[in-house]
Amino acid sequence: MPDSPFASAPLSRPSLSAAEILRLKALKEAVGGFAHELSQPLNALMIASQVIKMVVEKSALSQSERSFILQRLDIVTTQVRKASNTIDAMRTFVRGAAQTNDATDVREVVDFTLSLMGQQLSARGIRLVRNIADYPLLTRLNRAASECIMIAATAYARDLIETQTKEIDEAASEDSRVLEIDAVLVEKSPCIHLHWPKVRGEGFKVSDEAAFHEACVVMADAGGKIDITSSELTLWFPGVE
Amino acid sequence: MPDSPFASAPLSRPSLSAAEILRLKALKEAVGGFAHELSQPLNALMIASQVIKMVVEKSALSQSERSFILQRLDIVTTQVRKASNTIDAMRTFVRGAAQTNDATDVREVVDFTLSLMGQQLSARGIRLVRNIADYPLLTRLNRAASECIMIAATAYARDLIETQTKEIDEAASEDSRVLEIDAVLVEKSPCIHLHWPKVRGEGFKVSDEAAFHEACVVMADAGGKIDITSSELTLWFPGVE
Repeated sequence: MPDSPFASAPLSRPSLSAAEILRLKALKEAVGGFAHELSQPLNALMIASQVIKMVVEKSALSQSERSFILQRLDIVTTQVRKASNTIDAMRTFVRGAAQTNDATDVREVVDFTLSLMGQQLSARGIRLVRNIADYPLLTRLNRAASECIMIAATAYARDLIETQTKEIDEAASEDSRVLEIDAVLVEKSPCIHLHWPKVRGEGFKVSDEAAFHEACVVMADAGGKIDITSSELTLWFPGVE
Repeated sequence: MPDSPFASAPLSRPSLSAAEILRLKALKEAVGGFAHELSQPLNALMIASQVIKMVVEKSALSQSERSFILQRLDIVTTQVRKASNTIDAMRTFVRGAAQTNDATDVREVVDFTLSLMGQQLSARGIRLVRNIADYPLLTRLNRAASECIMIAATAYARDLIETQTKEIDEAASEDSRVLEIDAVLVEKSPCIHLHWPKVRGEGFKVSDEAAFHEACVVMADAGGKIDITSSELTLWFPGVE
């Protein structure tokens, strides 16, 4: 992995309080419960829509009314299925993605992360620019850990962009709220580079850095590296042997 | 708070690894994304069902067909609303319940926890017996922390019951898979007592104890106490002044 001009992140910073860890662990337990709570109404409304379909098909409705209603019922079915898939993804994420010996393509990690967090960025007026290689970017780090690191990195960039552009007038803020994500192979290491225009120096908060502490440790343990400045963040994933 | 015959939980045990904390933090970030992913299909199918309703009301359907379909559409609406409420509850839980100066009634904490985790218990064949006081059980510990402690306690009991009854024949296991939850006021301290029949001594795993470490720390910091044995767990919440 090439040397980088950025300062390395501190690895020995004290981490979460017991109350914070307790809250996170409880969240993990709770998500399973929420997933179950969500499955029940989805099943109930799937059944209701199937029953409506049966009745409509046998009814004396005109051809155009019938096909109109059946089309809308298809939307209901499709959306229930979409929601069910999301619940499955949530359950899988809580359990941790299946551990395999296959290499992870970090391009899939970027896609997954942005499908989860893209809305949080756009809701804050942060425009996303992606430059992703059109060849595989394989790392030996497992999928679950790679996803967590990328989620942490995106959350970090999001918070820093928000801090740095706060109190800036609307028009200027629109231009400066851009997150650019580049993903390429650099000397056999998949490298994800997140960068954004630096607006204010004092926006670089130590508390933000602490929040990113575990990602740096996990990446270093795997033989990779994370570089941080106030306007960019580089994830050097360990390549495949 | 009265003295207890149980051994106190160790408070200085080393806690989560960086990888575990990273995973939990990423889950917190991800839940917001999942909530958004779930809201979109629910909105889409709510609109679809409203449109169907409009068409059905104006159609040439017989009175009985029309009222049958409208009834089923009401089910759709009700279930979508139910799912939306669950998504809101999930978002609130991730953000942390609003901090107020009001005392927390631990009976509400028990209800919330069991609504989230009841299904996980019944799926494991664990029968739940509740004996909850019919008067308020007020603690000065805030709602969010109280919920996390109760969730952690329930998860702990669930795992221990499962470990202790594993490899036991079906019939015996059915009798021994019972979790009894008592909640009463003991000398001004709200006390939640979780207990279950002890089946095998070696079922008491240290790893389980470590998982419960943060709950003990948070409770002790608040002036309460948690007692643990292999067949019971007592949460002594700090009372109101």
